[in-house]
Amino acid sequence: MAKKYCDIETLKFILNEVNNYTSLFELEHFADHDAESMETFFDSVKDFSDKELYPCFAEMDSPPAHYKDGKIIVHSQVGKVMKQGGEMGLINATFPYENNGLQMPLTAFTAAHYIMDAANNHLPGYLGLTMGATELIIHFASEELKETYVEKMGSGEWGGTMCLTEPQAGSSLSDIVTSATPTDDGHYKIKGQKIFISAGDHEYASNFVHLVLARIEGAPAGTKGISLFVVPKKRPEADGSLTPNDVITAGDFQKLGQKGYCTTHLMFGENDDCQGYLVGQPHKGLKYMFLMMNGARIGVGRGAAAIAAAAYEASLQYANERSQGRKLTNTGKKDVNAAQSLIIEHADVRRMLLMQKSVAEGSLHLVLKAAKLADVANFSSDEKERERNRLLLEILIPVVKTYPSEMGLQATSNGVQVLGGYGFCSEYILQQYFRDIRIFSIYEGTTGIQSLDLLGRKVVMNEGQALQLLAGEVMQTIQDASKYDELKPYGAKLGEKLQLVQKVLTKLGGFAMAGDFERYTSDATIFMEFFGHLVMSWLWLEMATVAKESLVKGDTAHSSDFYESKIHTMKYYFKYELAKTTSQAEVLMDEASLTIANGKKVFA
Amino acid sequence: MAKKYCDIETLKFILNEVNNYTSLFELEHFADHDAESMETFFDSVKDFSDKELYPCFAEMDSPPAHYKDGKIIVHSQVGKVMKQGGEMGLINATFPYENNGLQMPLTAFTAAHYIMDAANNHLPGYLGLTMGATELIIHFASEELKETYVEKMGSGEWGGTMCLTEPQAGSSLSDIVTSATPTDDGHYKIKGQKIFISAGDHEYASNFVHLVLARIEGAPAGTKGISLFVVPKKRPEADGSLTPNDVITAGDFQKLGQKGYCTTHLMFGENDDCQGYLVGQPHKGLKYMFLMMNGARIGVGRGAAAIAAAAYEASLQYANERSQGRKLTNTGKKDVNAAQSLIIEHADVRRMLLMQKSVAEGSLHLVLKAAKLADVANFSSDEKERERNRLLLEILIPVVKTYPSEMGLQATSNGVQVLGGYGFCSEYILQQYFRDIRIFSIYEGTTGIQSLDLLGRKVVMNEGQALQLLAGEVMQTIQDASKYDELKPYGAKLGEKLQLVQKVLTKLGGFAMAGDFERYTSDATIFMEFFGHLVMSWLWLEMATVAKESLVKGDTAHSSDFYESKIHTMKYYFKYELAKTTSQAEVLMDEASLTIANGKKVFA
Repeated sequence: MAKKYCDIETLKFILNEVNNYTSLFELEHFADHDAESMETFFDSVKDFSDKELYPCFAEMDSPPAHYKDGKIIVHSQVGKVMKQGGEMGLINATFPYENNGLQMPLTAFTAAHYIMDAANNHLPGYLGLTMGATELIIHFASEELKETYVEKMGSGEWGGTMCLTEPQAGSSLSDIVTSATPTDDGHYKIKGQKIFISAGDHEYASNFVHLVLARIEGAPAGTKGISLFVVPKKRPEADGSLTPNDVITAGDFQKLGQKGYCTTHLMFGENDDCQGYLVGQPHKGLKYMFLMMNGARIGVGRGAAAIAAAAYEASLQYANERSQGRKLTNTGKKDVNAAQSLIIEHADVRRMLLMQKSVAEGSLHLVLKAAKLADVANFSSDEKERERNRLLLEILIPVVKTYPSEMGLQATSNGVQVLGGYGFCSEYILQQYFRDIRIFSIYEGTTGIQSLDLLGRKVVMNEGQALQLLAGEVMQTIQDASKYDELKPYGAKLGEKLQLVQKVLTKLGGFAMAGDFERYTSDATIFMEFFGHLVMSWLWLEMATVAKESLVKGDTAHSSDFYESKIHTMKYYFKYELAKTTSQAEVLMDEASLTIANGKKVFA
Repeated sequence: MAKKYCDIETLKFILNEVNNYTSLFELEHFADHDAESMETFFDSVKDFSDKELYPCFAEMDSPPAHYKDGKIIVHSQVGKVMKQGGEMGLINATFPYENNGLQMPLTAFTAAHYIMDAANNHLPGYLGLTMGATELIIHFASEELKETYVEKMGSGEWGGTMCLTEPQAGSSLSDIVTSATPTDDGHYKIKGQKIFISAGDHEYASNFVHLVLARIEGAPAGTKGISLFVVPKKRPEADGSLTPNDVITAGDFQKLGQKGYCTTHLMFGENDDCQGYLVGQPHKGLKYMFLMMNGARIGVGRGAAAIAAAAYEASLQYANERSQGRKLTNTGKKDVNAAQSLIIEHADVRRMLLMQKSVAEGSLHLVLKAAKLADVANFSSDEKERERNRLLLEILIPVVKTYPSEMGLQATSNGVQVLGGYGFCSEYILQQYFRDIRIFSIYEGTTGIQSLDLLGRKVVMNEGQALQLLAGEVMQTIQDASKYDELKPYGAKLGEKLQLVQKVLTKLGGFAMAGDFERYTSDATIFMEFFGHLVMSWLWLEMATVAKESLVKGDTAHSSDFYESKIHTMKYYFKYELAKTTSQAEVLMDEASLTIANGKKVFA
């Protein structure tokens, strides 16, 4: 295990100086918080992560969480984290006061969970799923359901889950068949199977509250006929006792990574005695679920960003300690009598580390920016401001989910490579990060689905207004950067790339105008890569500009090496990563249609 | 497990029709072989792989090969494969007749091992390492050593290994410290530790013969003072008995993948009784080792190509069986009442599968082309022809090692993604391929080292002659393709890219001319990516041209769908993969120097 799993100084720099998140405390909803109280909170989360999360990270990988005799066996630390995490507000911090919450900004909560994810990405999900399930109840369920469930879930006494996927319906939620039959008693009888249920069962919660998508008999086909139900593992009775509710844990899924985070298979109503309680209106279940989805997708981006950061720290430490080979001398030869160099002296190793750093820190900025957009969109008193932030969040959210997941995997693979043969060995932690992060491009809508959302929905939403707002933000950053000679050329480059986006969209738009929607979206994933690099370059230019300002002003909040390193990493990003957009645009502008099924036996 | 692990039809197409490998039988050395006898050989290898390798592939992953009580415990199938593989010629097929070999072309041997690698990449290494060690003895050792070792190794009765790496010397072989002390009896006393020794010990060989790099006392520093020794685990005595030779198996390395292929830690001479026998001349050890290295690197590329192919087959089968979601109709909406589509109907899934197919099949072509170059370079009667093929092999070999490894990982990751959540689950095989293939960019010289070899050595060797020869080959393919209107534009595109290589090298050459060798090579890995895509585009155009010729001629060796699919995959490659070279050239031509250590604290 490496000495360090995340760089708190960079986290605070991005939070405070780059995203200016303390401005949130000016909003009435967050008025009771301030920078100082948040610092104390972050310190306690870091301390908790140091003591309770990081030390058991490797051991949670083996033996993995597993199913045995009808039960899910998880690492005992799950119990500690549910209890202590609950007490610390790591489930309910963002909830309103009236729901036992602390009305903390999502931005601060995201920073706190980022620290935990970096320390041990197998554990925070137990808290996060419980939070998500409770939020659905808070936002959409009846007062009675809130009274019954919110407090016990918010404290971590009861666990919560999201039950969407079924064996025949993975990404395609319109095809779920779990049924809900109304009864005269007001509740519904639930029957069906759900798979891939994260944190779906274990011995360290006295009850589980499943938020289940199901179809009420006679409901319309497709997504418009899906309702949301609260389905407890044990029904709370009036006297406080718990009665089994015919929810059976049928098995689990053994996985490539995140092995300490259980993934279960649940069966509801096998004995015709599973009660579910409708949340909100019938047939609105998917709408409710998707109103919460932005938060979930920020959470996925956050987790991937955190793993990429932890992998970066581990490979950086190795590169600073391991000697191997020698640098070339000016004659182009090596002096074999000289001592070996640290591998961090080799250009190729530095390139890999800079790639890791740029992806990890850039992703963190992206995730925190998205969280702040959500906070303002939800709680600003200015309606126009709310709408502006909502639109910006909408267009960024598929990137927030995807960029850290996809590029984080590549960055973590570079981290493995920095260690050479040891990177492949179990005694070093890099291989675990490499396995763990692989799921993030699948969670909560695969990269393909996010890309369809970006190009098919978000780019065109409100007649392109979200995209226009984003372009305005990018232009503002270019203008800010252009005050500094060192940064001006990067601003100019980013401006060119912004025009390239328009050119690409005009080209693709031609397909849509001609009615060929399949062709319009067929290269959506390439568009996602293209757009993601552009967004990330914008964020890096913003970071570099803040760093440059601080250097010019002589700020001493951080060392000048720290600020310079952010500027250097921006330059890395522009040279090595933003450059990829040239080719991505070339692919997107290429009219050939090679991936659309047209009867040709392409895979013969 | 998927029904199919490799496409024999494509293998034979690439071998026979694209690489015209039967022309090798015109060389005297291979005169006893013919297409028919090779077909029989391939069929028997396929049958062997079907029955003995593929069925135990998943179970070799868990429990892994491991160290226990001084021994390495491997899956029992290792014994069967050593014995039966030895009998089938899967160790000694390429050896000369006088060394119990069959004088089979490396090209055919590579095809045979490719089938085995695709079936179970954990097993063929046991044969391959034994082959490599025996080859060193055949080429460079005394008659006495040959008589003692070659027969028993070639039959698989004794295992062979390569002992290069030491704890303090991974990629940097000049730093090895294992010592060899001459004795009056003619042998040397060996003392030292070796790590990462693949197939280094197990119960299914009655002896092991380690080929060990060590330094004779007083030898010059660096690579010029390293000698090669035969160091048996047990010394063969005159009466045929075996005496322990003070070689201790000290442990093993547990790994991310290839878990059935043991990786050991060996200690030589802990009790001062380890005898080693010098191979060839003193201080020439590294030279001998590197004369065999091209074969080893073809083997690595072959293994990665095979895993990428097996992963492709597994995800293709899933995509052809799994229904999920619906295609958009012409209105841009989905009809939720329609049956779900097979996921292979979705454009993004097809894009991922085409990427897998293009990388897997293109890599196979590259590997077989390299093997044929080696065969001609070694055995042509025409000296000029030998030199020409040698130079082509030299410039291609870093790509042969690297492209299948790096792009194969990306392709296999796409394979995981095709399965969605199931791709991450242990019950599906994709996650095992994903773990297994990760080592290939580290084996036998990491990607960084291959890239230095390509740009620092091979591009400039013989005053650029190897590169010129390669350019000539590419031009020939462009000319052949240009006979067909359908292919002509692709030839033109490839021609442009060839000019781009020259432009990039002229730019980089400026750094070398100015004496800045570190800057010349600092982006060598980006050059490798750039050059690799160009090479692969050439090979795909070659494949497409052969397919087109066959279609025009009305050949019925394969279906027209088969030929069309090769042309389609070429088009995919040009649109989606070759396009990347535009950006890679942009990076390479960018003068910024951001990865060279210059005292700045870039990682602050």
